Amino acid sequence: MQMGMIGLGRMGGNMVRRLKGDGHDVVGFDMNPDSGRDVDSLEALVAALDAPRVVWVMVPAGAPTDSTIARLGELLESGDIVVDGGNSKYTEDREHAAALAKHGIGFLDCGVSGGVWGAERGYALMIGGDDRDYETVLPIFESLKPEGEFGLVHAGPVGGGHFAKMVHNGIEYGMMQAFGEGFATMLRSEYVTNPAETMTSWRTGSVVASWLLDLLDNATRNDPELKDVPAVANESGEAKWMVEAALELGVPTPTTAAALWQRQASRGGADDILRVVTALRAQFGGHVTKVDEIATH
Amino acid sequence: MQMGMIGLGRMGGNMVRRLKGDGHDVVGFDMNPDSGRDVDSLEALVAALDAPRVVWVMVPAGAPTDSTIARLGELLESGDIVVDGGNSKYTEDREHAAALAKHGIGFLDCGVSGGVWGAERGYALMIGGDDRDYETVLPIFESLKPEGEFGLVHAGPVGGGHFAKMVHNGIEYGMMQAFGEGFATMLRSEYVTNPAETMTSWRTGSVVASWLLDLLDNATRNDPELKDVPAVANESGEAKWMVEAALELGVPTPTTAAALWQRQASRGGADDILRVVTALRAQFGGHVTKVDEIATH
Amino acid sequence: MQMGMIGLGRMGGNMVRRLKGDGHDVVGFDMNPDSGRDVDSLEALVAALDAPRVVWVMVPAGAPTDSTIARLGELLESGDIVVDGGNSKYTEDREHAAALAKHGIGFLDCGVSGGVWGAERGYALMIGGDDRDYETVLPIFESLKPEGEFGLVHAGPVGGGHFAKMVHNGIEYGMMQAFGEGFATMLRSEYVTNPAETMTSWRTGSVVASWLLDLLDNATRNDPELKDVPAVANESGEAKWMVEAALELGVPTPTTAAALWQRQASRGGADDILRVVTALRAQFGGHVTKVDEIATH
Amino acid sequence: MQMGMIGLGRMGGNMVRRLKGDGHDVVGFDMNPDSGRDVDSLEALVAALDAPRVVWVMVPAGAPTDSTIARLGELLESGDIVVDGGNSKYTEDREHAAALAKHGIGFLDCGVSGGVWGAERGYALMIGGDDRDYETVLPIFESLKPEGEFGLVHAGPVGGGHFAKMVHNGIEYGMMQAFGEGFATMLRSEYVTNPAETMTSWRTGSVVASWLLDLLDNATRNDPELKDVPAVANESGEAKWMVEAALELGVPTPTTAAALWQRQASRGGADDILRVVTALRAQFGGHVTKVDEIATH
Repeated sequence: MQMGMIGLGRMGGNMVRRLKGDGHDVVGFDMNPDSGRDVDSLEALVAALDAPRVVWVMVPAGAPTDSTIARLGELLESGDIVVDGGNSKYTEDREHAAALAKHGIGFLDCGVSGGVWGAERGYALMIGGDDRDYETVLPIFESLKPEGEFGLVHAGPVGGGHFAKMVHNGIEYGMMQAFGEGFATMLRSEYVTNPAETMTSWRTGSVVASWLLDLLDNATRNDPELKDVPAVANESGEAKWMVEAALELGVPTPTTAAALWQRQASRGGADDILRVVTALRAQFGGHVTKVDEIATH
Repeated sequence: MQMGMIGLGRMGGNMVRRLKGDGHDVVGFDMNPDSGRDVDSLEALVAALDAPRVVWVMVPAGAPTDSTIARLGELLESGDIVVDGGNSKYTEDREHAAALAKHGIGFLDCGVSGGVWGAERGYALMIGGDDRDYETVLPIFESLKPEGEFGLVHAGPVGGGHFAKMVHNGIEYGMMQAFGEGFATMLRSEYVTNPAETMTSWRTGSVVASWLLDLLDNATRNDPELKDVPAVANESGEAKWMVEAALELGVPTPTTAAALWQRQASRGGADDILRVVTALRAQFGGHVTKVDEIATH
Repeated sequence: MQMGMIGLGRMGGNMVRRLKGDGHDVVGFDMNPDSGRDVDSLEALVAALDAPRVVWVMVPAGAPTDSTIARLGELLESGDIVVDGGNSKYTEDREHAAALAKHGIGFLDCGVSGGVWGAERGYALMIGGDDRDYETVLPIFESLKPEGEFGLVHAGPVGGGHFAKMVHNGIEYGMMQAFGEGFATMLRSEYVTNPAETMTSWRTGSVVASWLLDLLDNATRNDPELKDVPAVANESGEAKWMVEAALELGVPTPTTAAALWQRQASRGGADDILRVVTALRAQFGGHVTKVDEIATH
Repeated sequence: MQMGMIGLGRMGGNMVRRLKGDGHDVVGFDMNPDSGRDVDSLEALVAALDAPRVVWVMVPAGAPTDSTIARLGELLESGDIVVDGGNSKYTEDREHAAALAKHGIGFLDCGVSGGVWGAERGYALMIGGDDRDYETVLPIFESLKPEGEFGLVHAGPVGGGHFAKMVHNGIEYGMMQAFGEGFATMLRSEYVTNPAETMTSWRTGSVVASWLLDLLDNATRNDPELKDVPAVANESGEAKWMVEAALELGVPTPTTAAALWQRQASRGGADDILRVVTALRAQFGGHVTKVDEIATH
């Protein structure tokens, strides 16, 4: 089917190639003239599509997505559908959907997992929105998803796709943290000679067999103790949103939060807490004069 | 090759069937006369095997394993090998190995993952002990492991197999907790209509694809909200040991511990903590007379 | 000085008594005719005060405070000051202050700690707002605070008072949880005969000496094992807000969150997580038919 | 009464001064000739005391305490009493008591809180052991404890004193962590101008009033943002032991553990976990070549 794609970066570009390979007629636009775009403006994109149009927005969440959707609200017509495949927060979806609905334009939010491997393996897709809009875009989703029974779900109403993706990423945080705790414990112990070899042996037949273990095999093949990898990690937002959403819902999420906090601490987030602890220890432990002593005695 | 198996319960019995199916000559013994045992005593088991013997112990950890290995120390000869395939703690392995070594008997500890599915899929095996003993028993390990490149590792010296299995199970705790947090968050939210369908859609193409997700699909097929499953979970020891080992090694394990603590709390472990909190709230919050009010206001 | 007090419940009523005892001229209003109110409407309250007026709002956070402040915006004059002494969220303070500022009315937010003991001991007060407004209301604050050097702080701009109170309560959660963990650990051990007696012995001379320990002494005097206290606790919002604020600021708060989550779990918040864990264990552990077995084996 | 003191370091020396000031006849010994010792050997110490003797051991836990108590077992007589006032683990107390009991020598374990302030304020003491031994040494305890009703408890049988002290220190960890989380959250926010001033205002009238807040006032007086304090903290063992004991007892201790783990992480304990997380992110996020990018994108 025909579709417009806005944003031809790593994700959007790969998706277009996968869709074209599956016979779809995709018109691509990107701000960057070197992106291999088919048209050079949003206006031209809209003009190049036959109504009712489907336009997939694949640009960074926040201001870029906001302004793109706002402009599409002006350019598109009643009956058209916008799909937000970026990393928007689920609360933003409702705002985008409401704004577009004023013009009779439909809206689907689509959480996408799979990373750079998705181009080849297919992307796991989670969709939020109305049944009718979902059915309209379904041929596109079917081409993007992996082969087989799984990899695509109509998760719920508007916001449900990004909510599901948020939870997916929160789980991903917890799983990676769990693997990390196991790896670090074995690496410090005298019992396990090669933690990486041990963990990757679990790729088949064990309860923890998973794609992340497959990736760990890749990651440790030339660096079994991960000595070349920095002991610091950034966070992308979704785990934080999930912990916040769960707090409001009254659901404890200690594992997701622990994974998130450790990343924050690796960037100095806990430093002021530690200063309080060490300052208090110095107060009741004795009049220590050198700060190095404060922290170690 | 020839081997003796002590313990013909669910795990031991399945293993014997898998080994016999692969052409091994396995002599089985169990305390239970209805177990399908080949011999009716440890003495008879030892007598039925040609030296140098390999005897696999597959009985509950603790006293049963302790007494079995102690008796084997008396019955076996120098050059024989004992394999402990149960859930012993890694610290016990060193004691068992030292006691057997006095008689010239070798020892391997073998952590086994795979549950009831292992009979068919093969078991993920983690082995601790000397290279020579490992090489001797390797044909047995090769028959028990799953097909393919993975599923068997010589993790380290004596204790390394059970240490690796302990860490494996700690990771398993963390992963199940992560999936649980995601499921519970979606179940309470208004955004995701069917959390089970959403999660099982991740079985292909997503970053969290894993065998546990495959199992969740089974578990939720007829009970998508898991309403028939009790909100209580027991613990089997390994995660506790892992947290303790990591504490000693100076490695934080918040995710593994959170998963363990939640199970302990589900059995009343946190009740006295809550009583303190509620009693203090009543003290500074006002003179509440009815205990129900104390907890809710 | 002269002041109006809106809300004559336990907190407001006690404050009025303390203020009148200190010679202030307080005009009280409450929706409840049996509250001992001096006037029977907001209009009458405003009319009874000389400009520039100070009006203290001591009603439940959310809709009651919102509507009261909105009405005061209509009734008061430029130069008057509104103090919100309730438990509003710090983000609401900025909205209230902005709405009042349109009419030239000043705004202070005042976090109050001390519970029912404050009437006698004085209240710990944390104030947010402009210096000039703070100086104007200072005589009131001075009468409400405890005797001595401490108990009153101009914490920051508008919102700072409630932000500080939110953090105060988050710390309070963590401290109560810490005491609870210690109490519960001793209660289950065979080493400590009387945990309550042991803990209250720390009221003097120990590092953990604190008012909460003093209160624990009261609470355990007739019920040393707290057997009459329910093992369930509610949450009042502040700890949740603090964890959310810290998440946004990149500061890990595992202690505050653990205290909050345990309360949520005591009200069933973790039940669905446990169902997932137990359902998965049943999947890989064997075909268990009775749900009780699922949770215990 | 008469007593021998072994170990005249900061703690032991201060205790001797406090005891002598209260009229007790204390004979002091220390390995260090410059310690102001009264005798120059354990033998001389024992010879200088009249039977039945009370000997207080105030040396580092572990080997020094083990060897001192072993030697006292040889030198003392039936009816004498040894008090271990150091930081021994509660499990060691039982071994020490059993060894001394063979010679008819009594044993008390004494947990001591109060730090360097104890010399002036008195020490909070927690005692484990038999009633009779406790009564014998009571005059010494009465002199060491603070004035007033609190500060001394006969916590339980042998090991109870150090178990109580262990729990005391675990609580102390949690409280300091709670204060730290609050301080750090305020320091990063724009709402609170001076977190230290705000927190120390809580010293009177607030629910979190405590000796630790008093100490925080000292610590922040010349360095309100604690900029001169290192963001690293060591651990002394007791919190770790408490978490381990609670794990065995089935009591969740997330707050105590979080405080401990943060200190371990500040010394690199979480680094290998973070390496796993970052290595996996790089795997599924794209082929990143520079390690700095891996951690930040």
